[in-house]
Amino acid sequence: MEISYKNLNSRRVAVFISGRGSNLKAMLNNEKNRILNGEISFIYSNEKNALGLNYAKKFNKDFESFPYKKKNEGHLLRILKAKNIDIIALAGFMKILSSHFIAKFKGLIVNIHPALLPSFPGLNAQKQAYDYGTKISGVTVHFVDNDLDGGIIIKQRAINIENCGNADAVTKKILRLEHKIYTEALNILLTKKWHIEGRHFIYE
Amino acid sequence: MEISYKNLNSRRVAVFISGRGSNLKAMLNNEKNRILNGEISFIYSNEKNALGLNYAKKFNKDFESFPYKKKNEGHLLRILKAKNIDIIALAGFMKILSSHFIAKFKGLIVNIHPALLPSFPGLNAQKQAYDYGTKISGVTVHFVDNDLDGGIIIKQRAINIENCGNADAVTKKILRLEHKIYTEALNILLTKKWHIEGRHFIYE
Repeated sequence: MEISYKNLNSRRVAVFISGRGSNLKAMLNNEKNRILNGEISFIYSNEKNALGLNYAKKFNKDFESFPYKKKNEGHLLRILKAKNIDIIALAGFMKILSSHFIAKFKGLIVNIHPALLPSFPGLNAQKQAYDYGTKISGVTVHFVDNDLDGGIIIKQRAINIENCGNADAVTKKILRLEHKIYTEALNILLTKKWHIEGRHFIYE
Repeated sequence: MEISYKNLNSRRVAVFISGRGSNLKAMLNNEKNRILNGEISFIYSNEKNALGLNYAKKFNKDFESFPYKKKNEGHLLRILKAKNIDIIALAGFMKILSSHFIAKFKGLIVNIHPALLPSFPGLNAQKQAYDYGTKISGVTVHFVDNDLDGGIIIKQRAINIENCGNADAVTKKILRLEHKIYTEALNILLTKKWHIEGRHFIYE
């Protein structure tokens, strides 16, 4: 479906996680502090034991956890519809959404990637960047389509990783940026003052 | 050969061009204004009519122009040796140096690329970045090896291209950055206070 601000009606955001949920935590805090201009209304984990689910409980949020499998997609889509979710924000979600799921969900799906795409797509982007010897890396928030880490870019921010010394230091430095940028990108989407031209996300 | 500051003895730089030589011009001005801590001692163009050769004349620099072909490589290498050149700086040089040439030259060879490598290698990197819809691009100065645009990175600088509106505006914005960064990278090399670890260029 067309990517448009017309997909947005409710300001309600679902966050999909698989692990410790550090971006989820940042978003929940940003919501609480009214930095996020939307409402996190549902959290889904494909891993039953994801540590990030503790934040769902702590912040008193609806959540579910079940494997992301073809047979569960209809169930997940129904939950999202019932909860009137406008935006799915992937936050360390380790499964690739099926083209069927992407086509069926009637809102926007976004992801955050810990590198300046198209550099270093896929897993362990921070280590990829470090090992390559790049001096600059960063964070990309983009729409999710069927091309892994290849969707239209909403927001990017660069940082110097020259003096990081190892891949873990790069990961930490980028993570601090992720916690800010993801909320900023969601806020931009929620303004509805944007449109798409070709591969260009244009924020007016 | 090993990339080491031990390759540097003379501070003498050769610049290779093919076209208008805007980076060459910036370097020559930087040399004149003592911003460049080396000496541009030779200019080579593979194109007889390259406009950039006018800067060679204007700044009273030794230059030669002849096609970059296998049969001319020995001649070119002898000139570089006779002139005691430590660094070849490719500046809009449109030919790919042969592995034989790279192996035989006893100094360092560097290039500037108008994107944040490894994003957008090859030609028209600025337009590639614009067309992709990236929000951030930049400039990379890197060593030249046999892997096109894949050599070890010396310096990178990022810029926001979000509001550029077209590929030409990106090119202009990046070019202004190139004119600064290339000299800065050469100055770093000339300090000799650096070494290589794996793919990491470490400036102490």
